[in-house]
Amino acid sequence: MFTIPLPAAVDENMRQNVFIGVDIGGTNLRAALVDGSGTILESIRTQIRIDLGARAALDRLAAQCLILIRSARSRGLAPRAVGLGVAGKIDKLSHSVVFSPNLPAMRNYPLGSELHTRIGIPVFMENDANCFGLGESFAGAARGIANWVGITLGTGAGGCLFLDGRLWEGDGLGFSAEIGHMIVLPGGPPCPCGCRGCLEAFASATAVVRGARECIEQGIVREGPLADLARNGQLSAEAIHACARRGDAASVSLFEKMGWALGIALANVFSILGIRHAVLGGGVSAAWDFFSGSLHSSLSGNVSMLDPDLAVVTRGILGDNAALVGAARLASIMVDS
Amino acid sequence: MFTIPLPAAVDENMRQNVFIGVDIGGTNLRAALVDGSGTILESIRTQIRIDLGARAALDRLAAQCLILIRSARSRGLAPRAVGLGVAGKIDKLSHSVVFSPNLPAMRNYPLGSELHTRIGIPVFMENDANCFGLGESFAGAARGIANWVGITLGTGAGGCLFLDGRLWEGDGLGFSAEIGHMIVLPGGPPCPCGCRGCLEAFASATAVVRGARECIEQGIVREGPLADLARNGQLSAEAIHACARRGDAASVSLFEKMGWALGIALANVFSILGIRHAVLGGGVSAAWDFFSGSLHSSLSGNVSMLDPDLAVVTRGILGDNAALVGAARLASIMVDS
Repeated sequence: MFTIPLPAAVDENMRQNVFIGVDIGGTNLRAALVDGSGTILESIRTQIRIDLGARAALDRLAAQCLILIRSARSRGLAPRAVGLGVAGKIDKLSHSVVFSPNLPAMRNYPLGSELHTRIGIPVFMENDANCFGLGESFAGAARGIANWVGITLGTGAGGCLFLDGRLWEGDGLGFSAEIGHMIVLPGGPPCPCGCRGCLEAFASATAVVRGARECIEQGIVREGPLADLARNGQLSAEAIHACARRGDAASVSLFEKMGWALGIALANVFSILGIRHAVLGGGVSAAWDFFSGSLHSSLSGNVSMLDPDLAVVTRGILGDNAALVGAARLASIMVDS
Repeated sequence: MFTIPLPAAVDENMRQNVFIGVDIGGTNLRAALVDGSGTILESIRTQIRIDLGARAALDRLAAQCLILIRSARSRGLAPRAVGLGVAGKIDKLSHSVVFSPNLPAMRNYPLGSELHTRIGIPVFMENDANCFGLGESFAGAARGIANWVGITLGTGAGGCLFLDGRLWEGDGLGFSAEIGHMIVLPGGPPCPCGCRGCLEAFASATAVVRGARECIEQGIVREGPLADLARNGQLSAEAIHACARRGDAASVSLFEKMGWALGIALANVFSILGIRHAVLGGGVSAAWDFFSGSLHSSLSGNVSMLDPDLAVVTRGILGDNAALVGAARLASIMVDS
């Protein structure tokens, strides 16, 4: 079933074929010049400052792209297209951000077409979790794997699905692979989406912080590093991860709960699709050592058709760069299609 | 996204092109002569008598096929291949039944190749839930729908998945679309598969009967039609459905619980795949009026990305014949591939 040929030996043509990949988060905007083999030639970062409005964000985005286009020219290269990875629901036909929880001012803003007007080369947009998948599929942990599911553990939990080597987009309803909104515990903790017990309500930075806060409010944790963080207004997934590394049992158990939920979600995806590969990314996946154990035991306990020893759940290998490389890959696929 | 062309007008060629479809259950063996348009020309039924062993079951199966081959000849037709739908895990390469809960004597028995030796025309095998899907997709409720999930509610809960108009088989691990073994309630009721809280533990004839028995054992139901059935050793999904039709509240609530679980399972499948169509079949789907209400409200309450008004969940329209027509369709697809 693993039918995707690995990229042929990288030749000079592939190196000359360059694209711009952009990863737009709630705070930062990263842009990179990426060659046809998925290698980042140059990357830059700035604040998106969405608080100044969509137009101001477009100004910053266009300026970053123009910097990279000029830099490419100085190397004798000409970027052929831009790929934009944006957290949120994208309308690809109108090149608009339909809705983005972290970029509220972008609602229904035709970011793609406005950027195209400014910089004069084709612009394509995609959900950031799908860009993560395109990156890991092309040049990362999922290279050569035909069927796999990806989960990005960040502020929320994003998902992507690759079937027969291609990004699966379902019925074209504007969403797909919403693994983060799979119900893992009916009636469980509330999720920002409005439902209860979604994977995201267990497996995301927001969920870990909320879990810590609940432990403190319910008196389960009265003192120790988590209580100190809360007192100082410094509760964050990174800080809780640091506490776990220093051996704080309460912090460790928050990540174990995340692993439990991930194990159920993956068991369900594997049972439904008859597949066995998953790649996890996003900032919170850095706490891998603290959730992978409970993930694997929960997965094993909740699949009956799949031999759990055949399941392969790994971390992405492109780290922060996955969505950048994937956005450039999107540009490359779309401009040639 | 609905790109499958409807079958062209049925021509004489299609009618001349005939196949044998076989549906092998735990008790009965049904076989039919089916033309290329999916019309059943003739069908016969006998007991499988698996208690006499795999060889005796093969004898009966071969005899039924030979009856249909002779009958076809008398019409001037020659069946080109046989499709066998069997409840259980199938190894298509060795044409064997790997394991079938209702046909234990078939374990690792090369039913397909043995039958081929007896009757001299090609034989292909498939899981019965996939045959249900092939039938409804070709000539039933899912005609023209590219992406959809099927659930068969019988003794257990089977599943099938069609993506881009084709039966999805995943990584070729010997299972796929095991919707019945998706976890809908972690730690919930035990499932014959060994896990807890699977869809099948809520939505199947076995689950409904177990639910009734628990209501009686726990004293929730002390008298009334369910208690009478239990006393007479006549608890079955059909009998409980009959009680529901006569207005028995306890029986109604058992089907409502089934609908609740189906709603969560479908919400998850729709969220994961970005699709919106499902077709339900199997004997227990006859109780549709008693579970479809809770199914729809549970589905609506557990999807955030899909507008619940776009979800289309219907009953199959081929009834008992879906797997027969689908097995014949399998034969037709495979013999020409």
